[in-house]
Amino acid sequence: MFSFNKLVIFGVGLIGGSLARALRERAGVSGRVVGVGRSLKAVQRALELGVIDEAVTLKDDAALANALHGADIVLIAAPVAQTGPLLAQIAPLLDARTIVTDAGSTKSDVVAAAREALGARIAQFVPGHPIAGRESSGVEAALPDLYVERNVVLCPLSENAPDDVEKIAAMWRATGACVRQMSEAQHDRVFATVSHLPHVLSFALVDQILDSPDAQLKFSFAAGGFRDFTRIAASSPEMWRDICVANRAALLAELDDYVNVLARFRAAIDASDGAALEAAFARSRVARTEWQERGGIKPAGDTTAGEIAAK
Amino acid sequence: MFSFNKLVIFGVGLIGGSLARALRERAGVSGRVVGVGRSLKAVQRALELGVIDEAVTLKDDAALANALHGADIVLIAAPVAQTGPLLAQIAPLLDARTIVTDAGSTKSDVVAAAREALGARIAQFVPGHPIAGRESSGVEAALPDLYVERNVVLCPLSENAPDDVEKIAAMWRATGACVRQMSEAQHDRVFATVSHLPHVLSFALVDQILDSPDAQLKFSFAAGGFRDFTRIAASSPEMWRDICVANRAALLAELDDYVNVLARFRAAIDASDGAALEAAFARSRVARTEWQERGGIKPAGDTTAGEIAAK
Repeated sequence: MFSFNKLVIFGVGLIGGSLARALRERAGVSGRVVGVGRSLKAVQRALELGVIDEAVTLKDDAALANALHGADIVLIAAPVAQTGPLLAQIAPLLDARTIVTDAGSTKSDVVAAAREALGARIAQFVPGHPIAGRESSGVEAALPDLYVERNVVLCPLSENAPDDVEKIAAMWRATGACVRQMSEAQHDRVFATVSHLPHVLSFALVDQILDSPDAQLKFSFAAGGFRDFTRIAASSPEMWRDICVANRAALLAELDDYVNVLARFRAAIDASDGAALEAAFARSRVARTEWQERGGIKPAGDTTAGEIAAK
Repeated sequence: MFSFNKLVIFGVGLIGGSLARALRERAGVSGRVVGVGRSLKAVQRALELGVIDEAVTLKDDAALANALHGADIVLIAAPVAQTGPLLAQIAPLLDARTIVTDAGSTKSDVVAAAREALGARIAQFVPGHPIAGRESSGVEAALPDLYVERNVVLCPLSENAPDDVEKIAAMWRATGACVRQMSEAQHDRVFATVSHLPHVLSFALVDQILDSPDAQLKFSFAAGGFRDFTRIAASSPEMWRDICVANRAALLAELDDYVNVLARFRAAIDASDGAALEAAFARSRVARTEWQERGGIKPAGDTTAGEIAAK
């Protein structure tokens, strides 16, 4: 059974706010929740909505020190690029017994930043990534059941105490999530393939059309296949810029593999090798159909935080 | 106002059957409709449903000659690869006043096959492509309003009489469709980009995952972005094999352009050039969002015949 005395959430938006609501409203856990934001306005709204008990800004050193004092758990639910600076700011204020975790979409870069920011205290950091999201963002979009039947990946470090990893796992399980563990390298490869690469490929198709002389003609004949393939090309440019840079190494490896598959397909098309094309297409169709039949993903709340796209 | 005495449809499935139903039930045109199939069973069902007035098989030479005698219009609504052989078979039986058109997803190859099959009678062939479809196929899926507000592309040949092109255009307009004309080369480029290439790219992503050592792990973390990007990877392998081969030249050109865009994106990721990535992603996002806001495509019947995918 999960319990805590004080949970401090940096970034009380969809992800952080939903964790607070889930623990409180769904799991009935009664510890104190402190929200920390870059501006007071951001966390004030979470306080008004009853998502947190106390609102603190990053600028108020004394309040921040007070907030962190005696905290069981700290969750960093801010954009990935802010994780390093945030950890550096709070490192001197952390109690030795506080466990820090995060919700970033990439993990190798976050771990590297955490090692640099926390130094010898790296054992206190348990890297995490809840795979959940909605098309809308901000604390108003936070839901107590956002994590129900969702995956949360933890990437424990060799320095982590097993009890600390279990405490973070128990917190996520209390939200209804399924906790799965893997290395940060494996995490980054998996999400490079199934999420980051498709976004790049989708952006690239629209980019190609825009650079062609008959772009508007092409758009005017685009139909259902185009619509689905490019839905994620309406995703946030800032978020995907950050993810591409943060997961650069894994993404480049997957992109290179993908270009090799395209070269193989190209050769088959060029040779009018219908048998090779049909065999490859049939294999993909079977796998895609089986994936869908196994449940694919749930119809609601079915995007990751990084997959928020315009409808 | 469109009218006809006799319309002969080769292949009374979704496309051919919907044309017959649209002319009859929607436009109230009262000419005779003859359906021709490879087997009698295929056209017998269309006869039972009242979609056609007479059922003929390709094997019955006398019936076929009789069917074609006095026909105003012949529609070939069979798989693209069968267009040449069908035209060769009917060429000696065609009245000089009969106009032949088709519904194939590719046009350059169809025109080449038609020139070969029809020889001096090529002037009688007006190439066409109705951009409509449904997830289900066959004459049972045929609808009188399948073509309402859909595009039908005609690719008139220099040999065509303007009155013949207008007759085919009038037929499609009578179904509620919007008729648009372009060259067969332009047609093939447009659909290579907005339809054929995305299918190849989608099949390729699933192919790549299947060849990776942790394929099942990757599938288990695939979410909404993957689902939409790969929906068309559940499309018919046989149909897409044929389209890739039929539209080989245009598809290869578009694929090469696409790989060049990927190389540009790769360089930006490799250089951690966030500004370049954000600029490209933002441009794509604006274009994709505007496409959607202009109406994108209609929510029903929104796949092309070649885009039929498992749900």
